Order: sequence, then C-alpha cells, then structure tokens
Amino acid sequence: MKVVVWNEYRHEKTNPIVADVYPDGIHQAIASFLKCETRDVTTATLDEEEHGLPDHVLFATDVLIWWGHKAHDEVSDEIVEKVYERVLNGMGLIVLHSGHFSKVFKKLMGTSCDLKWRVADEKERLWVLDPSHPITQGIGEYIELEKEEMYGEHFDIPAPDELLFMSWFEGGEVFRSGCTYRRGNGKIFYFRPGHETYPTYHHPDIQQVISNAVEWVKPVERARPVYGNAQALETISGEK
Amino acid sequence: MKVVVWNEYRHEKTNPIVADVYPDGIHQAIASFLKCETRDVTTATLDEEEHGLPDHVLFATDVLIWWGHKAHDEVSDEIVEKVYERVLNGMGLIVLHSGHFSKVFKKLMGTSCDLKWRVADEKERLWVLDPSHPITQGIGEYIELEKEEMYGEHFDIPAPDELLFMSWFEGGEVFRSGCTYRRGNGKIFYFRPGHETYPTYHHPDIQQVISNAVEWVKPVERARPVYGNAQALETISGEK
Amino acid sequence: MKVVVWNEYRHEKTNPIVADVYPDGIHQAIASFLKCETRDVTTATLDEEEHGLPDHVLFATDVLIWWGHKAHDEVSDEIVEKVYERVLNGMGLIVLHSGHFSKVFKKLMGTSCDLKWRVADEKERLWVLDPSHPITQGIGEYIELEKEEMYGEHFDIPAPDELLFMSWFEGGEVFRSGCTYRRGNGKIFYFRPGHETYPTYHHPDIQQVISNAVEWVKPVERARPVYGNAQALETISGEK
Amino acid sequence: MKVVVWNEYRHEKTNPIVADVYPDGIHQAIASFLKCETRDVTTATLDEEEHGLPDHVLFATDVLIWWGHKAHDEVSDEIVEKVYERVLNGMGLIVLHSGHFSKVFKKLMGTSCDLKWRVADEKERLWVLDPSHPITQGIGEYIELEKEEMYGEHFDIPAPDELLFMSWFEGGEVFRSGCTYRRGNGKIFYFRPGHETYPTYHHPDIQQVISNAVEWVKPVERARPVYGNAQALETISGEK
Repeated sequence: MKVVVWNEYRHEKTNPIVADVYPDGIHQAIASFLKCETRDVTTATLDEEEHGLPDHVLFATDVLIWWGHKAHDEVSDEIVEKVYERVLNGMGLIVLHSGHFSKVFKKLMGTSCDLKWRVADEKERLWVLDPSHPITQGIGEYIELEKEEMYGEHFDIPAPDELLFMSWFEGGEVFRSGCTYRRGNGKIFYFRPGHETYPTYHHPDIQQVISNAVEWVKPVERARPVYGNAQALETISGEK
Repeated sequence: MKVVVWNEYRHEKTNPIVADVYPDGIHQAIASFLKCETRDVTTATLDEEEHGLPDHVLFATDVLIWWGHKAHDEVSDEIVEKVYERVLNGMGLIVLHSGHFSKVFKKLMGTSCDLKWRVADEKERLWVLDPSHPITQGIGEYIELEKEEMYGEHFDIPAPDELLFMSWFEGGEVFRSGCTYRRGNGKIFYFRPGHETYPTYHHPDIQQVISNAVEWVKPVERARPVYGNAQALETISGEK
Repeated sequence: MKVVVWNEYRHEKTNPIVADVYPDGIHQAIASFLKCETRDVTTATLDEEEHGLPDHVLFATDVLIWWGHKAHDEVSDEIVEKVYERVLNGMGLIVLHSGHFSKVFKKLMGTSCDLKWRVADEKERLWVLDPSHPITQGIGEYIELEKEEMYGEHFDIPAPDELLFMSWFEGGEVFRSGCTYRRGNGKIFYFRPGHETYPTYHHPDIQQVISNAVEWVKPVERARPVYGNAQALETISGEK
Repeated sequence: MKVVVWNEYRHEKTNPIVADVYPDGIHQAIASFLKCETRDVTTATLDEEEHGLPDHVLFATDVLIWWGHKAHDEVSDEIVEKVYERVLNGMGLIVLHSGHFSKVFKKLMGTSCDLKWRVADEKERLWVLDPSHPITQGIGEYIELEKEEMYGEHFDIPAPDELLFMSWFEGGEVFRSGCTYRRGNGKIFYFRPGHETYPTYHHPDIQQVISNAVEWVKPVERARPVYGNAQALETISGEK
C-alpha cells in the first residue's frame, strides 16, 4: 500500500515555534509514525514541482493524507481536479485539521466547510461516539489534548456518513471531530486535531487514529461501475 | 391533532424541590405551553388506571410525549407493547431526558440506551448541528441552560437518523442531545434536557424545540404497507 | 411562499413529441399543479435574461425546482454560483430527472452524479422505502409509470440523508429515485421521473410527491450560524 | 478469529429438495467456504443442547452467522438474550435471509422486520449501491441469481447505517438486500439471499460477500465504554 503525506510546509519554515515542534515538517512527523512493513510511505509538499503530486505518483497512491492551512489558494486547480478524480476512482483521503478549507475537501463536500475557531491554548477532549468502528480501535473513551486550537459548531459539512468523534473544548464549544464520507469509489476521513503550534501529531492516540484511518480508507479492489447508455439485461428466469 | 403528555409524576409528589419547580407536575408544565388552536393536549400519568393510556385514548393519540425516571419498571409490559405498536403504526413519540431508559424507548432502539450522568449543577449548552431542520426553527446557535444534570457519552443508541443537537457540559462531557429516528410508520424525537430539579421546561427555547418536534413527529396520512405473501405484479409495459 | 419552476425549455420547442406532451413547456405543467393559495408560483427558463433568475427573483425564492437535460453547459457559472449560495443560505431545491447532471446539483453533491440510462418505453415502479416521511404522504405502496426512461445503478451520489423511493425497471435495473440531502441551511430533494417524451408530470402521484417536497424543502426561519474567529463563552454555572 | 455458523437445520431433514441442495445442512455449506487459516469456523444448530451455543462457545465467538426460518419461536429467550448481549459487547452478527424474522434480529432492530414474499422461481439481481465498501470487494456491478424467493418492500427495518445492495426481482419488486447496522460495540450485516430450496450458498459471489462480511463485522479491540454515575474531569488546560 502506497501512502503519501501531503503538507503545505510553510509554517515550519517561517515560524520558530512550529519549527521547534515539527523540525522536519508536519509531513515527516506523520510519515514517520505511519511507516511499517505493509506500507510504502512518502511525502509531498506545496512548493515541490506539481506540489509533489505528478501523475506517476498520484496514480500509484492508495491513501493520500492532506494538511494545509494558509496557502489553500496556491494549490493549482489542475492538481485539485486530479486528486478529486482519484478519490472518486477509489483512492483513500484523510483530511487533517485546517484541511477542512482545502479546495479538494470543499469540492468533495459540496458545502462551505466553514466553522468557528479560536487559538487560546484550550483543553480538547475527543469523545468516541462509535465504539464499534475500526478507526477507534485501541482508543479509550476519549482522547485528551492538553492544548489545542478550538474549532466550534456550526461546522458547515454534509451530515457525516459516520460520526466517530465529538470534541469538547474548555471554552464552551463542541465540534464533529471525526467524520467519514464515501464519494464514488473512494472513502474519506476528516480528523480535526493538529494545529501547527501544538505537538498534537506526537500524541500516541492521535497517531493510532490516523494509522487506523489509513487502513479504513484504503481502496477496495473491484471492477468500477459502468455509466452511460446501457443494453437491456435478461429478465426472465430460464430453465437452464 | 391529539397530543398526550405522559409523566411518571412521582418526584413532584415526594420531593419538595421538584414540587416547587413543577407544582402541577412536569406533564402539566409541558401541556400548558403546547396548547394551541390546532392541538388537543391532554395528560396521562403512571398511577392512573392503565397509566392513563386506555385504548380509546392511545388509539386516538397522534403524538405521545414521555417523561419517566425512577419507576420505569412499574410501567406494565402490556401498555409498553401497545405504545410500541402505535409508534410502528404511525404515532409520533417524543422521549424526554431520563425517558432514555424507558421500556418503550429501549425496545424501539434495540440497544441498552445507557449513558454517563452526574448531578452537579453544571452549565449545559446545546449546539445546533443541523440548521436546516424544522425542529431547530426559531432557535439560535445554541441553547444555554444555567444548571442541569450532566449526561455524557458514550450514549448507547443506534446512530441517529438525524443528529440535531450536541450538548457541551461544564464538567467536560458531550452528549447527543437531539436525535431523530424513524421506526415503521412512526417518527421519534429524543430530547435530552429536563432533570426534575431544574426549571428546564420553563425555558422558552426548550419549549420551542418540543413544540417544533410535535409538528415534526406527527403522523403522515397514507395507506399502511401490506406485508406477507404477495401476488405477482404486471411487469410488461403495455400499449394501452 | 415563493416557488420558481426552472426549465431548460428546449426539447419542447424542437421535438414535436415533447411539444405534444407539454405544449406550454414542462415548467408550466409543473407550475400549474403547484399553484395554491399559500404559494406564489412562477417560472424561469434558460433562454431568458440571466436564465430568468435575476437577483431580485432568486433572493426572494423560497423553493427552486430544476429541470434541465441537453444544455447544462449553457447555464452560466455565475448563476450556478448564486443558486448554490442560495441553497447553503436556506433556499429549498428540488432537482428533477436529468437535472442530476446539472452544474448546481453536481456542485452540491461533490460527485460525478453519473448513472446508467436507456430509452426503451419501460415500465417503472417507484417503491416507497420510508412510509413515515411527509414527502410520501398520500402515496400508496408504489407509484407505477407505464413507460419511462430507465435510470440504473450505480448512481454516483453521496449516500442520501434519507432514501424515500427505489425504482424497479422492466429491463432489470434499480435506482435510488427519491433522495433527500441537507447542505448548509438548505434542503434538497432529488426525484428521478420525468423524461420529456412521457406524460410523467401529468400523473397525479408524481404531482403529489413534488407538491409534498415543496413543503418539505422550504426554508426554516432562524438566525444563520456565525463563522470565523470566536470569543470565549461563559463556561461556569453561576449563582444568579 | 472464531466464527460460528448457526442453522435451524430442519428443512434439510424433512424436505428432500432441500436435502438435495444442502446434504449436510446450510450451516456446513457456509462453514466450508468460510474456512481458512485465520478463521476457526464451527457450526451450531437449533436441536443441539442450548442450541449449540453454551456460554463457553458463545463467549469465545467473534462472529456469529444466523440462518433460521420456520422455528424462530423455538429459540429460547435465554439464548436470544445472551446473543443480544454479546452483540452489544462487540460480537459481529451476520443475519441471512429468513433470519430477518429471528427473535434476536427483531430485538436489535426495534421494528417488526416484516416484508413481502413470494416463492415463484424468480430471477434476482442484487445491484451494488456502495462500490467503496469492503463487503462488496471482488463483486461486479451486480450479482445475478437465476431463481430465488422474492422479498419485497416495504421491509420494516430502521434505515440501514449503510445500504450496500438493492435487489431487483423478475416479478416487479425491489428490496434492501445488504444492510449494515451498529449496535453498542457490535456490527451487524443483514444479507437477503438464501431460500433453502435454491443453491444460493453455492454461488461464488454470495460466498464472497459473506466472507467479506465476516471480516467487516469482526470485533474491534478496545476498552468498552463505562456507564453510570461519573466523576468530574479536569477541565482547565494546565501549565505542566
């Protein structure tokens, strides 16, 4: 299974606080805990050629992880369209934190994906709503993050196919923090935590969830549906 | 439309704090704000004959509202079965607060309906997750209750058909507070707030939600589905 | 309530068979059965100025009904964007038949909305899957259409929030024929039947469903959610 | 992983047609194609002691498959209660065909689970509605069964969490044929085909779906939620 971790990779180069938390970038931090025998994990970033996603990479990718924040507009529409088509054709997509405002997530959701936010070093607690779901495997009743950015409802998304986590924030808000969606032949998982100034991706529970999600969103091997003008089928049960 | 508000009506008779908040019982408090020209609103309580739900009442009821807490076991299985059948046949059901543990709600859900709880005068904030739903009509971004009993996840219910409210509690928990379900020809709304020692049912937003829900759960007028051994249908498009 | 029936209105002007079935256009046929005391029903068509949807019309519209087929590409992106924003802000949208491929429906769904099709005068039977839903009010167990175009799965849409009708076709296919979605503050109903060469919109059951849907998608009156940087809320329950 | 295939095992002993199709019983037919290195597959039948499900078996079972038809009432309430509790505690459950009327499925659904039926050697075609789901892995656009019993809507179940297959029948009906549900910590898959007089469980696609479903419903390894009176949590982000 080929996993690509995509990162905007700008904060880390300009903000010393972020560089201190993620010296090699958020993408390398995520890639490092995902690596294992059954996974070929690589990274791609905004400022690489074709944002690090040329066709020979993108078409071989089984699962794409996306972290972006302040430069969503710099992602070319052509790459967005290709990623979108890959999802409809079966590639798994994990969208993290501020990726809620990425072009590709908004295009797949069909809504504004807007929300409330506040950076105030608040405690976050992600409660598990669906204890039967493989993405919550190995997680206790909740994940606690000592300090995070707040995201609050209303989160303008379609009702998730499955709602796995709901966040509580110290400052009084709640948020749908773990949401699954199916689009075409592809599966999507949105996972809220991960503001760049906090060590969220170093937290073992957060790593467990993302690793679980990689397995959950991976493509199903099957023939793709056929669309368009169709011939009539045989409709009568015969005497073979 | 005939609406019946059912109440266990025990706390009010033995606990002076509750009697002070609801001198005529929770059922009368709810009935009084639901009454209007298009609704015939009556009440029924546990200690009445047949719990106040004899056939001539139950079979004429369009919407039944249920509040119970410490005497769920005293509700006769025969009445539970009748209420259950009425819901499958189209009667609307609104289950309030501790009614999550009523026999009929558990039977309709198919799960334990268990949860966490704590009585500690905590602030509750019910955030609206679906701003397009008629049950949230007239409500702002959230409803704030100064003091309430805490209910916390995991709430052992099937994933709601629609999740309308999510509660935040001062003490650190979240809860799925407004849930719709469809069962057979009937519609169900579970609404969390309403511990007996707090004036929750005097709050205008809570009243608005329950009143909206009465309209939403009311029966649809149509032929009921036919079950069992079926004759074959005409399957070829003819030249009439 | 202001209802606008939008129609591409091209087939009726060039194909005598269609003109015979809908002499005043599909839009007039639909508008005529929707008109009643509580509804101001007007029409708009592709070849009018701004496709008949200038701002003063669109911003006053509560429910928009959309029929398009062979000229989806001629609908300007500017109008599509405005209709899309209106839906997110609460306007109800009913998309009919070949409108599945309209720009605005695809944008709201986030998928290709592709499907199988065949024009072969086939019998269609739309089975009611949710007998408790107000959109099915007054409809029997199924609606039978003597001859229709076939639409078949796989239909590339997100899983509907509610699946109300499932079609059976003489030629061997099935199709999700009645689907509800919520996007932002708006509600959407997709309803399959209505190929231009058949008198589908003259069928009383089809008229009933569309009329029911107008009531179901109409906007909810409430304050819109607020997004962006948020102030902290009061989180401690006080002694008022 | 321990898989138990439960069968009523009555038709096979009294009806020569069924005995001819399934000489060792439906349970052995299913067990034989499920067996593989990672699965310990055994069987249990109605007429065994405790229906073949004593505690030491049931509590060790990861996935239970259920086929029953004419003797649902002979399954003891005590065993039903134990199976139900095991599902809420995480055991996977696959309910086949006429098992829709089994006590445990009805208890988990909270509805009558009634439907239309007809035994008339009709062609069935199960269309895949969700091509991204692992239960459909390896399956084409549809599964065709030359002759089967018809099951038709309305099927009185809660709206499935995921609807994977929809059946088309020669005689004019449709049916929700592949439905997933989550209840407590457990996952459930209902799969329609398998009338005892037809060789349905010898069909490779049907075998593939049941095998896929075994993997999908298997338990998630994690701590179970805690219910009841809860202590307050730490709600303020500290300076560690």
